[in-house]
Amino acid sequence: MNSAGMSSGERQRNPLSGLKVLDLGQIYNGPYAGFLLAMGGADVVKIEPLDGEAIRGRGGGKKPSFAMAMLNSNKRGLALDLKAEEGKTLFLELAEEADVVLENFAPGVMDKLGIGANVLQTANPRLIYASSTGYGLSGPAANGLAMDLTIQAASGVMSINGPADGPPLKTGLAICDFYGGIHLYAGIMTALYERSVTGLGRQVEIAMQEATYPALATNLTRMYNLGGVQPDRRGNAHPAGSSAPYNVYPASDGHVAIICVREYHWERLRSLMGRDDLKDDARFADQPTRGREYAAVDAVVSAWTRVRTKAAITQALRAQRVPVAPVRELPEVIADEHMRGRGMLVDLDHPDFGEVVLPHSPLRFHGEERVALKPSPDLGAHTRAVLRDWLGYDESRIEQLIAAGALGAADDTQLEERAT
Amino acid sequence: MNSAGMSSGERQRNPLSGLKVLDLGQIYNGPYAGFLLAMGGADVVKIEPLDGEAIRGRGGGKKPSFAMAMLNSNKRGLALDLKAEEGKTLFLELAEEADVVLENFAPGVMDKLGIGANVLQTANPRLIYASSTGYGLSGPAANGLAMDLTIQAASGVMSINGPADGPPLKTGLAICDFYGGIHLYAGIMTALYERSVTGLGRQVEIAMQEATYPALATNLTRMYNLGGVQPDRRGNAHPAGSSAPYNVYPASDGHVAIICVREYHWERLRSLMGRDDLKDDARFADQPTRGREYAAVDAVVSAWTRVRTKAAITQALRAQRVPVAPVRELPEVIADEHMRGRGMLVDLDHPDFGEVVLPHSPLRFHGEERVALKPSPDLGAHTRAVLRDWLGYDESRIEQLIAAGALGAADDTQLEERAT
Repeated sequence: MNSAGMSSGERQRNPLSGLKVLDLGQIYNGPYAGFLLAMGGADVVKIEPLDGEAIRGRGGGKKPSFAMAMLNSNKRGLALDLKAEEGKTLFLELAEEADVVLENFAPGVMDKLGIGANVLQTANPRLIYASSTGYGLSGPAANGLAMDLTIQAASGVMSINGPADGPPLKTGLAICDFYGGIHLYAGIMTALYERSVTGLGRQVEIAMQEATYPALATNLTRMYNLGGVQPDRRGNAHPAGSSAPYNVYPASDGHVAIICVREYHWERLRSLMGRDDLKDDARFADQPTRGREYAAVDAVVSAWTRVRTKAAITQALRAQRVPVAPVRELPEVIADEHMRGRGMLVDLDHPDFGEVVLPHSPLRFHGEERVALKPSPDLGAHTRAVLRDWLGYDESRIEQLIAAGALGAADDTQLEERAT
Repeated sequence: MNSAGMSSGERQRNPLSGLKVLDLGQIYNGPYAGFLLAMGGADVVKIEPLDGEAIRGRGGGKKPSFAMAMLNSNKRGLALDLKAEEGKTLFLELAEEADVVLENFAPGVMDKLGIGANVLQTANPRLIYASSTGYGLSGPAANGLAMDLTIQAASGVMSINGPADGPPLKTGLAICDFYGGIHLYAGIMTALYERSVTGLGRQVEIAMQEATYPALATNLTRMYNLGGVQPDRRGNAHPAGSSAPYNVYPASDGHVAIICVREYHWERLRSLMGRDDLKDDARFADQPTRGREYAAVDAVVSAWTRVRTKAAITQALRAQRVPVAPVRELPEVIADEHMRGRGMLVDLDHPDFGEVVLPHSPLRFHGEERVALKPSPDLGAHTRAVLRDWLGYDESRIEQLIAAGALGAADDTQLEERAT
């Protein structure tokens, strides 16, 4: 038997059933780690200040950001003032019951509040305390203010993204926030596994800058090959110019991405295009030569793709097992029958957003009956339930804390007033 | 006591000490998951075919890709022909001893070889079998050939990356491969934690397309706000046009990224620029107004940044706690004293690449004595050692398998010949 009350050999319903998590995450990074824990079956309590976390958008008539719905499904909501003495005491009591506390505040925020890792782990040595910041908790850059945009700049991402003739370009999505969040989850699971061996918790630390670094593998390889100098930006062309076709090509109704990794990919594409005459053209002789002559190669391929639809090109190349994909826009992506059929995308009637498409977890475990998707909680929606379940508080004690201004519950009119 | 031989309360040297992993990963996705396992202290055996995995670059005088060194540190190398009967039998014997088998082949490859998840988990019910593919193992798109480029197309990433006046643009780094790899590691750790409760392994499945989806949160939010239509590409401007300053600005020696999240950020920047006259200019009144008037805002900020160095701008804004970062090129990134001081970047004399800078793991556990970085193994460098350690094979049995062509060892001249 063990903490989750199962004997060896018994299958539990979900991988993380029985785990208790306090999720202080805000915006994307921390909340994504909490989301993966919740979708794995853990009891994840999202703790927010009385006016809600940053993307809750309360006050001033602002609606919550749709990202709130994407990243907080299946969590329970608790509104708590960590700056109030009663709030701090209550948080400490919850942390004594928890398996995991996670946060993505700036370094030192929790220590200044008096509820940092050392305090919590002294009270609960089995606790995993996990934080994700821009540059980490130590070193000369630790105090730099970090958002996805500034980490994209500092990590080198912008320097290699964008067309050859333009300035350094941020990526159109918040890649560093999400590298931070998924590494945070990975670190938490590593520490939970280790605890199953040692019985002890760990403090887990993620820096977004460090979590992004390995993803620059192609670019760091090119820099190595250039003898240590900065590679140029190359738009959609092959990062090393060593292979063609490799590009995004125009279609009559959009674009398609095509790569010929192996020689037979090129041979099949060439036949499909009716251009077997190129067999004897020295510019198309082999992969390195085509890489150098990529302008000529791309001209031939574009002439063929330009007059065909994305669907026709994709179908023809897939039938020949040549790597291809249509460049899809987001409305096509959320309508994807494949991801819907796999249960990755779920239709839900959300109280704040209406009929929307929301993601389930990208972590899939065969034989698991996946949890049903529940909408992200309203601020303080489960304050009362969590205090009863985790701490056995009775109603009068909860009311007392609400009256003292340390707690908020969704059905508490004062919470509404305080928030606006 | 437990499988790693520790009693409760005893600290082990590294979080994953005692775990045995068979890493069949190739290129980036699988190898990154294996890298994180190795840097956590697991015994990770990198299994390659006799002519090496794709980025090994053997034959034809090609050097291995530098990414080989980045993603395979601290693994042991074993060269094995999975298509030979003896190779298959040997792999099955190893899998009976292993905690984890990971791979990123196309769907069905391992099943066709007769050593898929079902076969291995029947032999070893505690085994975690983990695979990462482009679209997953089920559903109509499962058989689509998937590389980072095609997943960037299909997932919607290209549709929102790039300047407003250009075509859909791939990101300059292999973001989808690495979302796949880190989710693969996260899924493995989740299953290892679950095994500590149930005693049973799981089959873990990751699809790169699904692992990328949540990172589109900003863009899916904007689509929601637009009523379901595709957002435009916006280069370096704020994705929703709702905030300014938010951009990459020219400096005298490069570029800097600046964001004003809160009103006081803007007020401090305004003072620093000597432009408190703008206090009464209606175009700069508040965040939403500045967002609409971003062209005017960016003109003011650029006029100030253009004549200053990256370092001077960064220093001045950091002193005022305004979010800023220099846009760094890769040579600056690998020289970063902060990441070096934290042990994230390590100088190593690598047998294949000479003096290089390599990453340690972004997963950091306080109190852990991190493993020292060891260079990625040569093909088959530890074939003999692994068969002795894991299976107790004697030298004659190993030689027999090498002679039969099922195994390769680094000091085996036949391996060299077969590979070229």
